[in-house]
Formats: sequence, structure tokens, C-alpha cells
Amino acid sequence: MPERRSWQNKFNEWFHDMLSKAEIVDYRYPVKGGGVWLPYGFKLREKILSLIRKLLNETGHQEVLFPLLITEGMLAQEAEHVESFSQQVFWVTQAGRESLAEKLALRPTSETAIAPMFKLWIRSHVDLPKRIYQVVSTFRYETKATRPLIRVREITTFKEAHTCHETFQEAEEQVKTAVKVYSSFFDELAVPYVISKRPEWDKFAGALYSLAYDTVFPDGRTLQIGTVHNLGQNFSKAFEITFEAKDGGREFVWQTCYGISERVVAAVMALHGDDHGLILPPSVAPIQAVIVPIPYKGYEEAVNRKAESLTETLRREGFTVHADLREKYTPGAKFYDWELRGVPVRIEIGPKDLEKGVITLVRRDTLERTVAPEGEAVKALESLLSRVQADMKNRAEAWLKQNVKRLKSLSEAEALVKAGNISGIIELSWCGREECGLKLEDTLELKALGTPYPEEKVEGLKCVLCGGKAESFLRLSRQY
Amino acid sequence: MPERRSWQNKFNEWFHDMLSKAEIVDYRYPVKGGGVWLPYGFKLREKILSLIRKLLNETGHQEVLFPLLITEGMLAQEAEHVESFSQQVFWVTQAGRESLAEKLALRPTSETAIAPMFKLWIRSHVDLPKRIYQVVSTFRYETKATRPLIRVREITTFKEAHTCHETFQEAEEQVKTAVKVYSSFFDELAVPYVISKRPEWDKFAGALYSLAYDTVFPDGRTLQIGTVHNLGQNFSKAFEITFEAKDGGREFVWQTCYGISERVVAAVMALHGDDHGLILPPSVAPIQAVIVPIPYKGYEEAVNRKAESLTETLRREGFTVHADLREKYTPGAKFYDWELRGVPVRIEIGPKDLEKGVITLVRRDTLERTVAPEGEAVKALESLLSRVQADMKNRAEAWLKQNVKRLKSLSEAEALVKAGNISGIIELSWCGREECGLKLEDTLELKALGTPYPEEKVEGLKCVLCGGKAESFLRLSRQY
Repeated sequence: MPERRSWQNKFNEWFHDMLSKAEIVDYRYPVKGGGVWLPYGFKLREKILSLIRKLLNETGHQEVLFPLLITEGMLAQEAEHVESFSQQVFWVTQAGRESLAEKLALRPTSETAIAPMFKLWIRSHVDLPKRIYQVVSTFRYETKATRPLIRVREITTFKEAHTCHETFQEAEEQVKTAVKVYSSFFDELAVPYVISKRPEWDKFAGALYSLAYDTVFPDGRTLQIGTVHNLGQNFSKAFEITFEAKDGGREFVWQTCYGISERVVAAVMALHGDDHGLILPPSVAPIQAVIVPIPYKGYEEAVNRKAESLTETLRREGFTVHADLREKYTPGAKFYDWELRGVPVRIEIGPKDLEKGVITLVRRDTLERTVAPEGEAVKALESLLSRVQADMKNRAEAWLKQNVKRLKSLSEAEALVKAGNISGIIELSWCGREECGLKLEDTLELKALGTPYPEEKVEGLKCVLCGGKAESFLRLSRQY
Repeated sequence: MPERRSWQNKFNEWFHDMLSKAEIVDYRYPVKGGGVWLPYGFKLREKILSLIRKLLNETGHQEVLFPLLITEGMLAQEAEHVESFSQQVFWVTQAGRESLAEKLALRPTSETAIAPMFKLWIRSHVDLPKRIYQVVSTFRYETKATRPLIRVREITTFKEAHTCHETFQEAEEQVKTAVKVYSSFFDELAVPYVISKRPEWDKFAGALYSLAYDTVFPDGRTLQIGTVHNLGQNFSKAFEITFEAKDGGREFVWQTCYGISERVVAAVMALHGDDHGLILPPSVAPIQAVIVPIPYKGYEEAVNRKAESLTETLRREGFTVHADLREKYTPGAKFYDWELRGVPVRIEIGPKDLEKGVITLVRRDTLERTVAPEGEAVKALESLLSRVQADMKNRAEAWLKQNVKRLKSLSEAEALVKAGNISGIIELSWCGREECGLKLEDTLELKALGTPYPEEKVEGLKCVLCGGKAESFLRLSRQY
């Protein structure tokens, strides 16, 4: 098993601590499963959303905004879908002092809100492809214990994309585009992942198939951080979304959808960190560098002035920089604060730095110190931030790699489970039959994540359970 | 009465037409009072929100995000407030197949959601002032006819700010700051306004007093586009939001709140326009300039290439520019499209322009054409956009000025009403008593907007109704 740093041993406590101490989300709000995004957390959320918006806009997606409420009739139109969500829907039944004639659902997801509009908007093949997305709150009445950012009742950061196409093949291409977009997104966040095709018994209700991104948390459990679904024609048939094809016939559109949520924020927080607090990747850190003057007697004015002028210089170059000039706090107290909040680089300016015309840079991830000539501050910060970003990504990927293990037999897996040593993902050769898959889940008390995507060819292996010809590897883990 | 241009005569029809033809919001969504923001409308909304965010961030406000759901108990804690909203609240009473023990309100506004958190966050005077804001959906079960962007059941663009202070005086100062922020905001949008102190009988439920921004629509009716409230200690007493004062005692905080909604988008659309369509101010237009090549035979390639390179040049300088290279459409059809969408400047590039090394710029508001050397495109566009912006603001302000009339007597007002000639706002000297105010509303069948803010001294005038000493002018109008 991989070595555990100390913050990882008490990961749950650490994570909850960080949410409040670094001022990300406050879950003391009086409605269960709902939290308040605090200013620093809100900025982190915005940076992450800007990144996914940029990637979606560059690939032909257009942002829109749909209403929250869905009539019972709309929600019920696709049978599998409503069945899957029926236990989880919040219902509005009254308005003012009246009872509503038809009750209204708070959207659990928006397929059934969007479908009637696609039906109006799409007439002909010239209207296709259609690629839209929105960032909204969705609602699910979770009966399991709620968990900050991970299992909540109001999902406040639901980024959902919905697309329509002329052919199955074009929908398949869109799935590949979505995978490219999400892979770039998680790469830029330094969040490592495996992509799996979810087993039939765990796909999105109404989809032909579902792909999912999972990462491994410091406690060894996996978290689903993104999904991509090929919906086929299930919704277009239920909602009669048709178009006039090039040959003049009327056909049902082919659809895909894909989503992420605030779980991405949880992953960014969780995948990097130490006993000092958060370590945020420069790509989305609300503050990339904090400047702390070291005010030895007689030099207070000078170091503060230098801190301010350097802030100006760096901001002009596009960095997000904050000068911490609070008088009541010692430099040490300030270091503590900003390390906790995960600011990737700290710049110290003391009397000696002034004399020598240098600045001291401290990178958050390793706490290493370097010195650079003041005149080269821009270059020094730029290159340090990109080193921090690259090193964070490499470390996180190494962590994931350590935590995906291909085992040869069921007994090997059972031994690990018995020893309480399951961390991350195990892969076992599998015949592909649901019966064997479910039995593996039961026997190991793990959850199946599905099979590797893109599909991996398996030759000459047998199902660890039934001994039949193996079709692929089944990934299993303890899941959030 | 001011001269009416033709689009103003059929303003209602024009406005509805614009919403769909310019692809702002689609109200064919199956739930009444809910609309879908379409890509172009969404961008306009985003530009407007960026502007208000910038102004709020610059003045010490921090963006946060609160949950949608409020328990019945929380909502009921401030008596006047719950009384005022009780007819308008959507209630969640079921989740999955269960009935909820306590029903949950969809926020009609967030004072009662935020108050319990202020109570947790504020301990001492060092925690004050506190200034937060959020952009969220709020919900009101409007029983009157709904109206796109103006009277909706899901207010999708509710920007609400909430502040806490140590003293009444500091809350008063904050009201002034809010007024400065909103005034700059509407100025940059070229939306003219009057600010009134709402009469006692029409203030926000739970406020000491309410200020409101109203503008005059082309049909002569006024629309409330922003409000600023001094809440005093009403909510802090109801929710026990206290702080340790500098002298060691415990005191209740003093609060303000202020908000705008998608009515601002309606105003930006409505205050400028003509028979060709929208005219959007350069400050928030999703596209500031569209480049249309004029492809005479043999020059197709050359004009397209020039359009593309000019787009690049202008984008590098920070303009939002779109080159319309669609092959299926004639230049005339493209002009029609972009005029409809209100793009402030069109740049034409034809064979003659190429030969002469010039570009032709057409401003949307006046449709005037000017020619500039191609090498000066950046400067030419920059100065044309700022002229358009300034002229739009001046025209809109002149329109408003024409539409605010101070009348000398009740009979003068009655004559105007009788002739069906009420456009905009009339001001009548008033004793300040509710009895006279309500009677004026009744007699004239108009609604009182309140008295001028900042307060105007009135000397030697009498109330047009009772003949008592006039305290101020009462503004009245036909309101949306």
C-alpha cells in the first residue's frame, strides 16, 4: 500500500476542517444538505467554472439557462428516467395558499426540461448539431447521510451539457469530444482520473451507456467526478424530438449529455493538501501569489511600499496577487493563514531582500524557498507557478497510478479486503456477465466502476469468478 | 407629449417580437412565468451581470451563494416580511414519496435565509461592516398576468446585496454607496432613471424605508428597475443578530439590502430600439461590431480574408467582434439579422473598400455610414463605439426628461388623465400625509412612486389635494 502522509490518515476530519477554516462552504445552514458558498470558496468555484466554460465554448457549446421547475407530466415522459429519480424528487405542491393543480418538481437534472424546447427548436437537419449547456442548482432528496460537496441535497454547481445530432455516429463523436473536454479540464486541475464504462446496472436512467470519471481520495475511496452519456433516441422518442433529414424523411434526433458538479471542487481540495492546509493548483487558485512584507523596525514603510508596488507590477502581467498588509498580524500568522488557504506561492520581502534587491519566493506544495532578483519577479513567478502546477499534476498522477491495481485472482482481492487493505481501485478479469459482476460486488463488498474506457482488448484471460472467457477488466472500489 | 417613433406606438408587440427574433428568452417553456435564456440573451445577461459585479467588488462587496430552500420557521421569523410574501411563496411539501415534516419555501428573496448565517458569522464589531451579494433565482407566485422579463414567477437574475453595520449612521452611508453603485450601473447601461423614496404604504416589508429606481418605457409606463432598503434593526432583532460593541455591550446590527433583476435586461432592450430591432449599448452588447464582407464576383476570397484578418486585429485590442462569413446569405440579409440583434457597429468590406484600403463603418443607432482608412480601424471603431454609447445615453436621458412633468394643480393632472395623455411621471406638491397620497392615486388612477431622492426642499407650496403645507412632490405614473 502506498505511504500515507499524516493528513491523509485523518482525511475526513482534515477535509471538514478545511471547508470551514479556509472558508469554502459553511454547512451550518438550517436546511439539511445545503451549504453557503463563502467568498473564498465562491472564487475557487468561479475559477473552476471559468475553465470548463472556456473549454465548452471553444468546442461549439452555447450557454443557456432553463427554469428550475418541471411539471410532473414532463418528468414522467421518459419511463426509466422518472422511475430512477422518483424517490429523490422535491415537489412543489402549494403556492401562496393554493394547492397547485399539477405538482412541480425541482429539477433533479434537466433532460426532461430541455426536451420539450429541443422539440420546438429543431425542425430540420440544418438545425443540427445542437450543443447547449448550463450551470444551475439541481435537487435530490438524498436519504443517505449527506456529505459536504459530495452528497448534498442542493447541488449548487451542476454543469450539464445536452446535445442533439443527426446520426448515432455523430452522437458517438460527440461523446469523444466530451471526453476530450473533461480530460483537459481535469488535467488543468491536476486532478487525476480513470475513465470507465459503467456497468449496465449502474448507467444513467435513459442512457444507452454511461462513461464516468473517477478519482481516488486520500482515504482510498473513489469519487465519481464527471459523467458522459450517450442517450441514443430514448428521450427523443419519448418527447418526439424529430427533424427533417437530408433525404426528406422525419427522424428522431440522437442525443448525448454530460455533467460535472461541486464534487470537482471537493477533488481539487482533496487531491492535494498537507498538515498545513490546502494546496491549490495555480490554474484555479483564487490568489496565485500572496506578498507578505517582513517589517523589521525602521523598515516597516519601505517593505510595505515595495509589497504594494510589486503587487501592481504582477497584476499588470495578469497574475492574481494579494498583498497582506494587515498590521495586527505577525508574518508568521500570515504565513499560517495563506498556507491554510492553499495559495500556491508566497513572496516575502524583508529588509535584507530590499538591500540586496531580491525577493524570496516560497512554493506552497513543497515549502521550498528560492530567491530571485526583484527585476525578474514576473519571470520568476511565472516559471515557479508553472513548475508548481506541473509537479502537482505529476504527484497526483503518481498517487492514482499507485492506487489502481490489476490483480490476478479473486483470492488475491479477498485477501486485501480481509486485511482492510483496499485503497483505490482493483481490476479483475471478467466475463462481462451481470451475474458475475454483481456477485463480485457482493463477495468483495466493493462497488463496480465498470470497464476501462477506451475499451482494452483482453486476450487469453478468464473471469476470476466463473472461469469463462474474460471480455474485459472490471474495476471495483470503495465508493463515496 | 413627446413625439413617438413608430416602434413605440406598438411597443408591446415590438418587445415580444424582439425577445424571440433576437433570441433573448423563449417563453414557450411549459411552466407559466418561466422562460429559457437563449445563447444571445444569455450573453447579454452575462455582460450586464459582469458590470454590476465589477462595481460591487470595487466597493467592498463579496460574492457568495446561499441555498434556495428556506424553512417555514425561518421565513416566519420577521412578521411584516412573511405577511407580505405569504400569498406569493411556492412551497415544497413532498420529497420522494414522503411528506416533509416542515415545509420549505423557494426563496422569494433572501433576507430570512441570510439572517441565521449573519447571526453565526458576526460576533464583534471587528466583524463589521459585512457586505455580501449573490446572483440567484427567486420565486414568486404572481397571480397577475405574467410578462416576459418584467413579471415572472422564476426571477432568474436576482442580484441581491445584504449588509450589516455597527450604527444607523453607517447603514445610512451604505445606502448612499448603494445609490452610487446603481447610478453608475444604469449610467453605463444608458438607462435613464429617477430615484424616489417609496411612500410608507409601498415600502419593502421589514424596511425602515425603500428607495427605488424607475425608468419610463416607450409606452409611457414606468418600470421599477432597482431598489435600495434601509432595514434598520427589524431583521437583526427578529433573528437576534448581535455584536459586541466597542464599549463591550451587546447590540443589534443595522442592515441594508438592495437588488436588481432581469428587469434591467428589459430596460436595456426597451429604452433603445427602432423599427429595425434592438439597439444595444456598446458597454454590454454581446457583439460590439460585426464584419460583413461584400462579395462581388471575383472578390469573394479577398473580402473574406480581409474580414478575418480585421476580426483578429480588433479582437486582439479587446473588442468583441464577429465576422459573418455565412455563404448562403446575401449582405442585405446579414444586415437585417445584425440590426435586429442590436449590434452597435457594422463594418462592411467590399471590393471598392479593398481597392482604396478603407473600411466602411455603420453605426446601429443612427444607421450613419463613415469611412476610415483600414490602418486606423482600431481607433475608428473605438471612437465610434464611444460616440454611440454617449449619444444613446443622451437620447435616453432626454426622453426621460421629457417624461417627468411637474404640474401645478390637480385639475391639470386630471385633464391629462382624461385626455389619455399620461406618459411618464407627473409630480404634484403634496403634504406628505398617507390619506392625501392614497386619494391622489385613486382620483388619478395612477400609482405613487414616492418623493424625489435626494430629498428636495419645497418652500411656499400647498398640497394639491388638501391645501395644507406641501412637504415634497409626490411622483405618480402608470406602472408596470
